[in-house]
Amino acid sequence: MNKTKEKVNAAIVIIGNEILSGRTQDINVVTISKWLNDLGVKLEEVRVISDTEDSIINTVNQLKKIFKYVFTTGGIGPTHDDITSKSIAKAFKIPYGYHKEAYKILENYYSPGKFNKGRKKMAKLPIKASLIFNPSSAAPGFVIKNVFCLPGVPSILRSMLGGIKNRIVGGKKVLSQTINLSTVESEISISLEKVQQKFKKVDIGSYPFFRQGKLGVSIVLRSIDKSKIENCNSQILEFVKEKNIEIVEID
Amino acid sequence: MNKTKEKVNAAIVIIGNEILSGRTQDINVVTISKWLNDLGVKLEEVRVISDTEDSIINTVNQLKKIFKYVFTTGGIGPTHDDITSKSIAKAFKIPYGYHKEAYKILENYYSPGKFNKGRKKMAKLPIKASLIFNPSSAAPGFVIKNVFCLPGVPSILRSMLGGIKNRIVGGKKVLSQTINLSTVESEISISLEKVQQKFKKVDIGSYPFFRQGKLGVSIVLRSIDKSKIENCNSQILEFVKEKNIEIVEID
Repeated sequence: MNKTKEKVNAAIVIIGNEILSGRTQDINVVTISKWLNDLGVKLEEVRVISDTEDSIINTVNQLKKIFKYVFTTGGIGPTHDDITSKSIAKAFKIPYGYHKEAYKILENYYSPGKFNKGRKKMAKLPIKASLIFNPSSAAPGFVIKNVFCLPGVPSILRSMLGGIKNRIVGGKKVLSQTINLSTVESEISISLEKVQQKFKKVDIGSYPFFRQGKLGVSIVLRSIDKSKIENCNSQILEFVKEKNIEIVEID
Repeated sequence: MNKTKEKVNAAIVIIGNEILSGRTQDINVVTISKWLNDLGVKLEEVRVISDTEDSIINTVNQLKKIFKYVFTTGGIGPTHDDITSKSIAKAFKIPYGYHKEAYKILENYYSPGKFNKGRKKMAKLPIKASLIFNPSSAAPGFVIKNVFCLPGVPSILRSMLGGIKNRIVGGKKVLSQTINLSTVESEISISLEKVQQKFKKVDIGSYPFFRQGKLGVSIVLRSIDKSKIENCNSQILEFVKEKNIEIVEID
């Protein structure tokens, strides 16, 4: 494959019955997506799957072939339902057991006598994995090839992203501009489609909103090319003026 | 296949570049998941995919074979990036065009002269689809076989769920109980695993929380069998008492 044409994309696998049951609202996708965008990596798919070995193995094995980077969240804690590390070891067909470096980190973190069996479980990883350090609560995440395994607790996950920044080779950063209009989508859809046809390399999204009792539409322009966004923006503002639509905000 | 043993499960496909880009926080998964749970249907997978025809066709065709019900959200509005209806028609290899009933609904909804080309697009559907009525803003969703297509705007989606309740044949409702403890996971993981081994038919989840500056663990018991949840709960409370752990709340 021509390396320069390789897509710089990513997928997230959320391992979590608590998300599927509706008990917990996921907020990690937004965090990881924005972080990836700053690094020039485009998030192209998210899957939320159950805490079962089969679903983890099958999903990760499928996605690691399609995407440049795969991030998993959840299932690396000390309890019986934390089966991500073992499942990832199986997915890559590599041994699972005490990871020397992880064991040392956790042994040092806990007071003498407090490093119990439950805590030791968090040192059980694919034994040759490279660690992702955890400045919040010590228990590390890990990386095998293009798969990055992170915890599910949002504050801990956020604290660990800084440590893997240098392992991500991004492409050109996608820039965006949002035009908020006081209108409804069906008033502008034909004009907007014409602009989209002219600017094939700008991804134009249209999203209705309800804010402070008012209906509106956010038009979002996304591209790696700043000048194309600017030109596209000008053409949108032309039809907005013609149609006498109020501009709420541009940012 | 033996109908009585058929799994009563579901998947959600979120069609939305705005979710993948991190611009918008999805909240529809929680809504649909809780609604399904009340109907006795278990949500087993969620996929967030981009607004492209290929990804919609491939994902829907894959999931409709695996799950009893598939729900899509997003992409049924009037703008150029709303391509769900056309893509679903292609996935099922059925004609796409003006849907007579949908056309009438929208024609009646808009004032004379206001039913423009953009609005008419929302009447373009797989022509033989069964409609899902929209009490909020008229433009209908639709059903083909086991695939239910809903809008992405959360308030509109919520208003449409009532209308499809009678098309869902659920199984036994999953019941749940939550025990919130003032402890950390690694203090209880071994005891909890022993309880899980005794109660194979209760799904025991363990989730750390930080609330009002305090660390805690939520233990969530899920089963269709109320008495099993109660027995499992008793055994957990036994080790909690032995370990002298404070119970924050049981609900």
